[in-house]
Amino acid sequence: MMPGARLTRYQQLAEDLADGIRAGALRPGERLPSVRQTCAQRGVSPSTVFQAYGQLELQGLVEARARSGFFVRATRRAPRAEPQVAPPRAEATPVAVSELVFELLGSTRDADVVPLGSAFPAAHLFPFDTLARSGARAMRRLPSSRITGALTAGDEGLRQALRRRYALHGVPLADDELIVTNGAMEALNLCLQAVTQPGDVVVVESPTFYAALHALERLHLQAVEVATDPRDGVDLDALAALLARQPVAACWFMPSFQNPLGALMPPERKQALVALLARHRVPLIEDDVYGELHAGARRPPPAKAFDREGGVLHCSSFSKCLAPGYRVGWAAAGRFAPAVERLKMMSSLATALPPQLAVADYLAQGGYDRHLRRLREALATQQQHALRLVERHFPGGTRVTRPLGGYFLWLELPPQVDALALHHRAMAESISTAPGVLFSADRRFTHHLRLNVGHPGDARFDGALRRLGELAHGA
Amino acid sequence: MMPGARLTRYQQLAEDLADGIRAGALRPGERLPSVRQTCAQRGVSPSTVFQAYGQLELQGLVEARARSGFFVRATRRAPRAEPQVAPPRAEATPVAVSELVFELLGSTRDADVVPLGSAFPAAHLFPFDTLARSGARAMRRLPSSRITGALTAGDEGLRQALRRRYALHGVPLADDELIVTNGAMEALNLCLQAVTQPGDVVVVESPTFYAALHALERLHLQAVEVATDPRDGVDLDALAALLARQPVAACWFMPSFQNPLGALMPPERKQALVALLARHRVPLIEDDVYGELHAGARRPPPAKAFDREGGVLHCSSFSKCLAPGYRVGWAAAGRFAPAVERLKMMSSLATALPPQLAVADYLAQGGYDRHLRRLREALATQQQHALRLVERHFPGGTRVTRPLGGYFLWLELPPQVDALALHHRAMAESISTAPGVLFSADRRFTHHLRLNVGHPGDARFDGALRRLGELAHGA
Repeated sequence: MMPGARLTRYQQLAEDLADGIRAGALRPGERLPSVRQTCAQRGVSPSTVFQAYGQLELQGLVEARARSGFFVRATRRAPRAEPQVAPPRAEATPVAVSELVFELLGSTRDADVVPLGSAFPAAHLFPFDTLARSGARAMRRLPSSRITGALTAGDEGLRQALRRRYALHGVPLADDELIVTNGAMEALNLCLQAVTQPGDVVVVESPTFYAALHALERLHLQAVEVATDPRDGVDLDALAALLARQPVAACWFMPSFQNPLGALMPPERKQALVALLARHRVPLIEDDVYGELHAGARRPPPAKAFDREGGVLHCSSFSKCLAPGYRVGWAAAGRFAPAVERLKMMSSLATALPPQLAVADYLAQGGYDRHLRRLREALATQQQHALRLVERHFPGGTRVTRPLGGYFLWLELPPQVDALALHHRAMAESISTAPGVLFSADRRFTHHLRLNVGHPGDARFDGALRRLGELAHGA
Repeated sequence: MMPGARLTRYQQLAEDLADGIRAGALRPGERLPSVRQTCAQRGVSPSTVFQAYGQLELQGLVEARARSGFFVRATRRAPRAEPQVAPPRAEATPVAVSELVFELLGSTRDADVVPLGSAFPAAHLFPFDTLARSGARAMRRLPSSRITGALTAGDEGLRQALRRRYALHGVPLADDELIVTNGAMEALNLCLQAVTQPGDVVVVESPTFYAALHALERLHLQAVEVATDPRDGVDLDALAALLARQPVAACWFMPSFQNPLGALMPPERKQALVALLARHRVPLIEDDVYGELHAGARRPPPAKAFDREGGVLHCSSFSKCLAPGYRVGWAAAGRFAPAVERLKMMSSLATALPPQLAVADYLAQGGYDRHLRRLREALATQQQHALRLVERHFPGGTRVTRPLGGYFLWLELPPQVDALALHHRAMAESISTAPGVLFSADRRFTHHLRLNVGHPGDARFDGALRRLGELAHGA
């Protein structure tokens, strides 16, 4: 099983240093002990020290200066607070957000627009050439009878590679529960349909990813929102109260690096979530598409790691971490796998083979983990950079998340700011955003924004973020 | 627009000769006049004569003998009659056939089984190597920003190529109505959902393709079946009566080479169908996946060719004619295109790019029509061969279709034969079939079979077809 709640060495070291900074023992502008010194003092390896310092940088407590080491950050004011938890209404809401989302997303397709509202990281972060070569090689090697006989559940080689990878991360999957899909989006939709009937109530987070609201709308389901903490994720007490009060067909949550908050449920809270839902026999649809994009040293365990009864329908894809545009996703659907496979067969028969084989061949070549390390590092560095820009350019009173993974920031602007109006003003200057109203069935989060910070080294993005901050001052 | 009801020269010539054969003017074993003689007599070109003779061969009236010419077929008995039209029940039926279909299809996945029940032609008929090369070339050429920015409606280059091809066939499509999908299956499902609400009534053919029944079941819709003639397709009088009697949300038909019958609605009947539905404001979901697999000289016009009001949601794919396993399909969804695009975005976001680009590059290379000619010829030849085997080995009283395209035969066995039991007996000998009960919401067609004859030159298929006929004798 995956690591539990105990802190690793580097986490412990980072915590200790953070305590020192907060207590004033290490003061703004002061240099942290050198890596060598700290190794000697604490009896740890240099890589542990590097990880700890990186973690502190990620938290905005220290900054690296070229050839000089790490320094406690000299901020004139305290770092931005994180957004507040906003308890949602308890009633079920029929969902109809798609009009608004389509209008907004449609307006951001223009290549001249700086896509701060986009859902994907920068294209240059992905190994498209290698994937193309892998695809051609694998397709030419495959006997043509295996192409015409492609199975609904997906290419067996890819499924084996996925099962192996999960097993290495401590998540053993059953042989038949894995179904390859047209991206995570199809996986999530199929899983949702497999466990619901029209009219059923489904619990989502607040705020929640708009695609979850779309899926509910398309399947004529009702949403109940449960509060989600920007750091720790789903409020388990609120969820327990909700489950005691009314029948619920399913939960659709993102326990790791939630979109839009970036919240990461600690392992013990994931475990408690799975146990709570198992007691109520309520299936959990787990969207884990950002799980590989952790800024910390280890991949956080998915909720699926704690699933003993096949009640977790775990969905993910390669679209955010390796191969956007390839639409290779999957569901590990537990005891619902046969139902999901049937729905897949009924609705799209099978997933395209060329992208599956391209990814399977790429994985077999062995460069995936190296690619992921580079990608994570680039995203974490850019997040720090973007946080500094937010701090500098957005109005006082702006709160912002500091996620431990993914590539989104969630901003809570001062209450008087109308984020939708701000979005329109920014669009007039060719800057898109994802305003908060997209992330709730009842159009809450009126002064919130989700910003994509997955474009490292892109001066256009920096300029757009700065300009957005200026616009927010006048809003 | 596409050619109307008037016979072309070769069709007229074929009709005249067929009349002569039926009237006894040309007798079994007799040689048809040579091509040169006929050219001189009728004042037509050699290619017209070849097409006419080919048509007669397809109808089972003559046979080609190597280096000797065409001969009227010497059958000891009259050729098999075609299956009868069976008027379906008029009431709407909630659909629940999927259990049976999954059980049957699941049992036919074994590579050791001869797949007479399969839905795909032989793998060796497709240019997989060329497609793989096309895919790699196209993916390497595409700027990576166009990969991460892949659109829900599909790659613009592929959409242009499709529009051009339709225009060449006399079917102008509107700029924005074309949406690329994960195979025709997804296109059909999205179109069906775009025009229905749970509980609605949808008209399907009788017999109908089981995937249509699946789609209805998945969307909680009700089916009303309308009789379909094995030659001419949907019974328009029955449909008109039905539309006058009850509210209908949509029709889902295959006007060209219907699965399982192979029926081809003549152009004037397609036109009448579109007009009838337009009067009732009922959308037509047109499944045209076999349209390119015509045995005659020209591609039959789809119903979409007669659509003036955007009421035809035309769906097709490359899965049966070029690239099985690539899952590149599309919908030309008329006035429902925006709704279909939104549903696509909500349920699977976008179609995988590598297969789209592979097909677009392949089309740009210019070999598609040559490939199609070879494929059609191989399928038509094999159909003749399979018809002879059916005639020779199946029980007296067996009726069989002689479709003008596609690669299915539909057999009506003597009424006492239980086709499902026959299927199970055949499966015990590693031969799959598609028994008739799969093709109806209320499990009619108990003594019918759909057989795949898309495996030219495969002795295993010939042997299996012969053996199936022997088993039918004892059933």
